[in-house]
Amino acid sequence: MRKLRMGMVGGGTGSFMGGVHRKASAMDGMIELVCGAFSSTLEKSRETGKSLYLPEDRCYGSFEEMIRSEKQLPEGERMDFVTIVTPNHLHFEPAKIALENGFHVVCDKPMTLTVEEAETLEKLVKETGLLFALTHNYTGNAMVKQARKMVENGELGDIRKIHVQYLQGWMAAELSEQAAIKPWRADPSKSGVGGSLADIGTHADNLVSYITGTRITEIAADLGRIGEGRVLDNDGNILFRMQNGAKGTMSISQIAVGEENDLSIRVYGSKGSVQWNQEDSTRLYVKWVDKPEQTLTPDGNAIYDDVRAVSRIPKGHPEGYLEAFATIYRSFAEHLMSVLDGHPVRQPDYPSVHDGVQGVRFIHAAVKSDAENSAWVNL
Amino acid sequence: MRKLRMGMVGGGTGSFMGGVHRKASAMDGMIELVCGAFSSTLEKSRETGKSLYLPEDRCYGSFEEMIRSEKQLPEGERMDFVTIVTPNHLHFEPAKIALENGFHVVCDKPMTLTVEEAETLEKLVKETGLLFALTHNYTGNAMVKQARKMVENGELGDIRKIHVQYLQGWMAAELSEQAAIKPWRADPSKSGVGGSLADIGTHADNLVSYITGTRITEIAADLGRIGEGRVLDNDGNILFRMQNGAKGTMSISQIAVGEENDLSIRVYGSKGSVQWNQEDSTRLYVKWVDKPEQTLTPDGNAIYDDVRAVSRIPKGHPEGYLEAFATIYRSFAEHLMSVLDGHPVRQPDYPSVHDGVQGVRFIHAAVKSDAENSAWVNL
Amino acid sequence: MRKLRMGMVGGGTGSFMGGVHRKASAMDGMIELVCGAFSSTLEKSRETGKSLYLPEDRCYGSFEEMIRSEKQLPEGERMDFVTIVTPNHLHFEPAKIALENGFHVVCDKPMTLTVEEAETLEKLVKETGLLFALTHNYTGNAMVKQARKMVENGELGDIRKIHVQYLQGWMAAELSEQAAIKPWRADPSKSGVGGSLADIGTHADNLVSYITGTRITEIAADLGRIGEGRVLDNDGNILFRMQNGAKGTMSISQIAVGEENDLSIRVYGSKGSVQWNQEDSTRLYVKWVDKPEQTLTPDGNAIYDDVRAVSRIPKGHPEGYLEAFATIYRSFAEHLMSVLDGHPVRQPDYPSVHDGVQGVRFIHAAVKSDAENSAWVNL
Amino acid sequence: MRKLRMGMVGGGTGSFMGGVHRKASAMDGMIELVCGAFSSTLEKSRETGKSLYLPEDRCYGSFEEMIRSEKQLPEGERMDFVTIVTPNHLHFEPAKIALENGFHVVCDKPMTLTVEEAETLEKLVKETGLLFALTHNYTGNAMVKQARKMVENGELGDIRKIHVQYLQGWMAAELSEQAAIKPWRADPSKSGVGGSLADIGTHADNLVSYITGTRITEIAADLGRIGEGRVLDNDGNILFRMQNGAKGTMSISQIAVGEENDLSIRVYGSKGSVQWNQEDSTRLYVKWVDKPEQTLTPDGNAIYDDVRAVSRIPKGHPEGYLEAFATIYRSFAEHLMSVLDGHPVRQPDYPSVHDGVQGVRFIHAAVKSDAENSAWVNL
Repeated sequence: MRKLRMGMVGGGTGSFMGGVHRKASAMDGMIELVCGAFSSTLEKSRETGKSLYLPEDRCYGSFEEMIRSEKQLPEGERMDFVTIVTPNHLHFEPAKIALENGFHVVCDKPMTLTVEEAETLEKLVKETGLLFALTHNYTGNAMVKQARKMVENGELGDIRKIHVQYLQGWMAAELSEQAAIKPWRADPSKSGVGGSLADIGTHADNLVSYITGTRITEIAADLGRIGEGRVLDNDGNILFRMQNGAKGTMSISQIAVGEENDLSIRVYGSKGSVQWNQEDSTRLYVKWVDKPEQTLTPDGNAIYDDVRAVSRIPKGHPEGYLEAFATIYRSFAEHLMSVLDGHPVRQPDYPSVHDGVQGVRFIHAAVKSDAENSAWVNL
Repeated sequence: MRKLRMGMVGGGTGSFMGGVHRKASAMDGMIELVCGAFSSTLEKSRETGKSLYLPEDRCYGSFEEMIRSEKQLPEGERMDFVTIVTPNHLHFEPAKIALENGFHVVCDKPMTLTVEEAETLEKLVKETGLLFALTHNYTGNAMVKQARKMVENGELGDIRKIHVQYLQGWMAAELSEQAAIKPWRADPSKSGVGGSLADIGTHADNLVSYITGTRITEIAADLGRIGEGRVLDNDGNILFRMQNGAKGTMSISQIAVGEENDLSIRVYGSKGSVQWNQEDSTRLYVKWVDKPEQTLTPDGNAIYDDVRAVSRIPKGHPEGYLEAFATIYRSFAEHLMSVLDGHPVRQPDYPSVHDGVQGVRFIHAAVKSDAENSAWVNL
Repeated sequence: MRKLRMGMVGGGTGSFMGGVHRKASAMDGMIELVCGAFSSTLEKSRETGKSLYLPEDRCYGSFEEMIRSEKQLPEGERMDFVTIVTPNHLHFEPAKIALENGFHVVCDKPMTLTVEEAETLEKLVKETGLLFALTHNYTGNAMVKQARKMVENGELGDIRKIHVQYLQGWMAAELSEQAAIKPWRADPSKSGVGGSLADIGTHADNLVSYITGTRITEIAADLGRIGEGRVLDNDGNILFRMQNGAKGTMSISQIAVGEENDLSIRVYGSKGSVQWNQEDSTRLYVKWVDKPEQTLTPDGNAIYDDVRAVSRIPKGHPEGYLEAFATIYRSFAEHLMSVLDGHPVRQPDYPSVHDGVQGVRFIHAAVKSDAENSAWVNL
Repeated sequence: MRKLRMGMVGGGTGSFMGGVHRKASAMDGMIELVCGAFSSTLEKSRETGKSLYLPEDRCYGSFEEMIRSEKQLPEGERMDFVTIVTPNHLHFEPAKIALENGFHVVCDKPMTLTVEEAETLEKLVKETGLLFALTHNYTGNAMVKQARKMVENGELGDIRKIHVQYLQGWMAAELSEQAAIKPWRADPSKSGVGGSLADIGTHADNLVSYITGTRITEIAADLGRIGEGRVLDNDGNILFRMQNGAKGTMSISQIAVGEENDLSIRVYGSKGSVQWNQEDSTRLYVKWVDKPEQTLTPDGNAIYDDVRAVSRIPKGHPEGYLEAFATIYRSFAEHLMSVLDGHPVRQPDYPSVHDGVQGVRFIHAAVKSDAENSAWVNL
C-alpha cells in the first residue's frame, strides 16, 4: 500500500478548520495532502499551497477546476479523495461534483443547508458506492466510544433520560465585533436557517445518537437570538424524545459567557449512567445502582479492547481534539485503503452521509418548533 | 435575651428530616427544643422525646394538643415557635393552627398541597404579623448568597440564560422497594399532585428565583413516571421563561441512576456567569467575558462581607448541608429575637411564605403543562 | 440517661476554636455547655458566658477556680468533663488539674509543649482511669475512617508509599500583620518549639498513623522560617519512614500562598491506593491495580457499615469540618455515657492521650533533624 | 523553504516512543521522515520502514550505516537531522556520531548514562555549532510555558516552595511480568544507575528548572527498590534546595498503584502560586494572596501572547501529550529552518544539551545521596 492522496476544498488563509483537517489527517502518516482549492482565487490558493510546501500546479482557483484537473492526472498521482472544509453553503456543490466524478469525500458538518440537498448526497453515495465521511469529530474520542459500547452491551440497562449541552461564550462578548470575525456564521445565506443549531447543535444531536444507538424523533425548541440585528439563533433550550422512549433536555448556546467548548452529555439507564465532557475528554464518569462511581480512562482498566485501540499513547497521557479528529480520518483511511486494495471491509466506525441527513433534519425541526411556540415537531 | 424555645411537629422515629432540623437548630446555640408532637400517638411521641432528653409532659400525641397545651403555659416556659417537619399533606393544618394561636412557624417545603392552602397561609401571616420561614435550605449556602449578590450588584450584567438540574437516583434501583421506604412520597394523597416536582423541583425553582432575583413566569414540562404503578412523576424535563426575559432548562429526576443529590445551577449574564453545585457547595465557579475563570470560596478573596459572615469557620474548612440549614434557622432566630426584644428588624434573608406560594404554583403549572403535551403554562 | 455537662477552658471573645468546639459539641444534642473559664479575667469570662446564655455563677476567672468550684457542686449539677481550647502552652496545666480532680478531659492538639508533659498526662490517664480525647478532628471524617478500614482489612495490600501535605497560605501575605492576628502562634513560649509543625504538622502525622494503622518512626526534616524575625518554622519538607517499612514525603506550610486548608493524603499499597483531601472531604478516590478508579462517598455504595453510621445525613449532602469535629465529641460522649451508666465499653474510635504523646514527639524530632541538616531522627 | 528531512534511530516494531516521535514530528507539516535505522537488523528495520511507506533503500541496519550513507547522498535528498528514540544506553553513540558527521540531533532523555558522556555531547554541540534538542516533552505544554512566564515576569513574587511529583503505577501490579514488557528499563547496563530516576525523575527535575528559571543545587534522596530482584530504584522520596534559596519535595514512583502518568507541580511564591498537572494539561490553577483562585486555559483570558501562539486550536478544545511533543519538534524545526535559510535566530524555547547534562547529574546525585542514607548531595 501507499499513503492516500488528499485534495482540500477550502482551508485558505484565515481558515481555522483547514489547519485542523491538515494536522488531523497528517498525524497517523496514512494520508498526504497533494492538492487544494484553498481559496476563491488562484492567487490566494497558491499562497496557501506555498506555505504548505505544495507544488504550484496542484493549487487550484476553484473546486470545479481541481476536480476536473485531478481527474485527468495519471492514477499514480491523482488525489484519492476530497476533503471539504468550507463554510456551510459550500459543502453541497463540491461534495456532489466530487461524487459525480468518482472521488471519495470527507465533509464538514452540517452537511448541507437543506434537507433536500442532504438527501441528494445520500442518494449519490448509495448510487456511486463511493465513501463519504462526515466530520462529527467528537465521536472520535475514545471515551465516547466506550460509552457507546457500554450502552450497546446493555451495561447501563434501558436508556431513560439524557441531558446534553453544548455551550460556548464567544458570541457573548461583543455581539457586533464577532460578526466581523466569523461573518458567514451570522449570515443565513451562508449558514442556512440555523445558527448555533447548525454549528454546535448538530454535534449535540449526533452525540446523543452515537452513544445511545437510537435517534431523537421529536423536539420542542425555544430559541434565542441575542444581540442587536441577530437573525439566526445563538441560543437554544430544547426538550426531546427518543425512538426508544427516552426523554431529554438539550441546552445549546454561543452566548454562554465564559464557556469555551463545553459539550457535555449524561445518559441515564436503568442500571447505570455515564457522563462525558469534551473539555475533560479522556475521562468517562460512570455511576451505578449498586457500585461506587468509576472514572474510566482511555488506556485504563475495564476498557473495551477496540476502544483501547483508538488511543495512540499509553495511560495517563492526554489526547485531545486533534487526536479525536484524526481518528475519524484514520477510520476513513483504513476503509478507503481496504477498498483500493480490492478487499473492502464493511464501513467502520466513522460518521456517515446518513448522519448528515439526520443533522440537517434536526436543524429544520428545531427552527419549525421555535416558530410554533415550542410545539413538538417530528424529525 | 435567652435561647428561643422550639416545638416540633413530626420528626418521630424513622424520620430523617426531624433529626436534620434538630441538629440544624441546635448548632448555633440560639434555639432549644422544648416540646414536640413527634408522632401520631402519645406513646411513640414520648419515646422519641425520651431519646432527646425531653420531659415526658412536653411530648404530645398530636399537634393540636401541643398548640393548645403550650398556649396555656406561662410565658417563661411556653414554646416560642413551631417547626413543622411532617410529610407534605401535614404542613397546612399545623401551620394554620399555630398561626391562629399566636405561634411563629418554621415549615418544610412544599408548603402545602394546593395553591389555595398556600394562599390561605400567606394571608394569615400578613394578618397576624407572625414570622414564617420556609426551609428552602439550599439558599442557606454561602456561595448561593454570593451568587445572588453578584447578580444583584450587576456584576454578571443582564441575566440571559439559566440551566438548573436536581438529579437523584434513589428511586431508580428498586422501584417497588423504594415505595416501602418512603411510601408517602409516592402517594398523591400525601404528596399532592407532584412527586419529584414537589420534593426537589420546588428547590430548583426556588434556587433560580433566589439567585436571579426574578421569577419563572412560564413553563413547558415533559414529565416521566418511570416504573410499574407509578402515579406521580419521578422525572421531568422543563423549559422555562423568566420575568426579565431570560430563558432556561430544568432537569429533575429521582431515577437518575447514581446521582446522589446533584442540585446544580448555571446562570449566564451578559458580562459573566456563575455555576454552583450542591455536592461541591463551598465553591462558586465564575466565568467572565474578559478575565480568567475564578473559583470563589466562603471565606476567600473577593467575597461580600455579609456573605463572609454566613460562614462559621475560616478558609478551607468545608461547611455542608447542616450548616446551610442552620443558617436558615439562625436568620429566623435573629429575626424572632429582635421581635421578642421589641426592636423588630425587617425580614432578613430567609425563605418566606410567599416563596411557599410560588413553589406550589410551580408544581401545579408543571403538571398542567405536562397534561397538555408540554404547552406553555403561566405560573 | 441525660445530656452530658461540659465545662470549657478558653474560648473567650476572639477565640476561633471556642466557637468550633461549642457548635461541634451541641450538634448531636448529647452535650450541654454548663460552665466555663473562657478568659483570664472574671469579667471577660462572664461577658462570653452571657453571650452564650449561661448563668453568671458558672462563669469563672480561671480554670483552677472552675475545677475547684465545680467539684463542690452536687452531682446532679456539676460538670462531667472539661474541654480545653486554649493556646498550646495552656493545655498541660488544666488537663493535669482536671484529671487530678476527677474530671474527664477533651483537649486540643498539640497536647503539650514538651514530651515530658505529654508523658505525664498519659500516666495520669492510666492511673485515674478517666477518659481523655484529643481533638485531631480530621480523623472524624467518614471518608478517613473508610480509608482506615480499607487498609485494616487488607484491601490495599501492603502499604508502601505515602504522601501527605498540609498547606495553608495565611502567613504568607503579610508576615508582620499576621503576627498581630495570632500572636501566640509565633511565640515559642506559647507555641513550643514547633510553629507549623505543632499547628498543622501534628495533624498530618496523626492522619498518616490513623489511616495506615502504623506509625512514623524516623524523619528527616528541612524546615523554613520565612519572613523577617520568624523564630518558629512556618514551612517544612520532610521525608519519613514507617514502622512497617513504608516510606513517604510530608510537605507542610503556612506560607503556601493561596492554599486555604489543604490537608491531603495519598496512601499506596500493593493492590490499591486511596487519596483524600480535606477540602473535598466527602470523597475518597480509590485506585486499583486491576479495576477502574472509584469515587467513594459517605453514604454511597461499598461503604463499611460502621463508616456509614458516622454520617448524619443521606447521600449527596455534604458534611464538613464541624461534623467531623462533632463526630469526635459524639464518640467521646457515647463512651462517657457508657461509663456513667455503669456499663463502660472499650474506648471507641477517638484520638487518645497516646496519640497526643506521639504528636509531641513528632514535633521535637522534626526540630532536631532540621538542626542537624536533615539527618534522620527517631521518634 | 521546504519540509525538513528526518532520519530516525530506533522506533522499530514494539517501540512506543518511535510512534510518538513520528506522529509528533508529522503533525505540523514541517518535517518528513525520510529514513531510519529502526532496529538492530536490516530486515527488521526494513519491515518497519515498509509499514511507514518508506523506500527500502532508506532503511538501514544500524545507525552508523545510516549516518555514513546519508552523508553521501546529494544535499537535496539527504536527511537534515537525526532523531534518537532508542533505550538510554543507545543515546550517546548515535548522538556523538551524528554530530561528528554534521547532522543536527533530536534526542530522547535521559541524554546519556554517565555525566562524562553528557559533558562530551555538550562540548561537541558547542564546537560544531549544530542544533541539539532534548525531548523533555512536558515543557511543550502551553500551560507550563504560561507558568514559566508568570515566574519570569515576577507575577508570583519570590519563589519559596515547590512540590513536584511524578507517579506511575505500572510497575506495581506484576513486578515480574513488567520486566518482560520493558526489560531494558530494569537493566542497569541499558538504563544506567537510575531506574525511575532516569525515566521520570529527570522530567520532574527539568520541569522544576523550566518553570522557576533556576536549578536544583542539592538533594537528599530516599529511594525504594520494590519487588523481588529489583536492582534499580522504582520509587523515590526527595528533598531539594534551589539556587535561589527555595526548597521543595519531590515524590517519584512507578509502583504508585493506580496512577497513570501523574506529573504534577506546585510552585509557591510570595505573591502567588501555580499548580499544573500533566493529566489535566490544559489548565493552570493560580492562587493569589489577594485575589480569587483562577483557572487559566491555553487560549483563554490573561494568557501571554507567545504562550497563546503555542496552541494549535481555539478555546476549550483539549490538546494533549502529542501536541506538547510536537511543540518541541516545531520549535526545533523553526530554528533549523532559520539556520538552513541562512538567517539563524537565537535558540528558541526547546530543551537543550545543557538540560541533558543537568538531568544526568540529577540521577547520579540522587543515587549517591540514597547510598549515604539521604545525606545532602550537590548536583
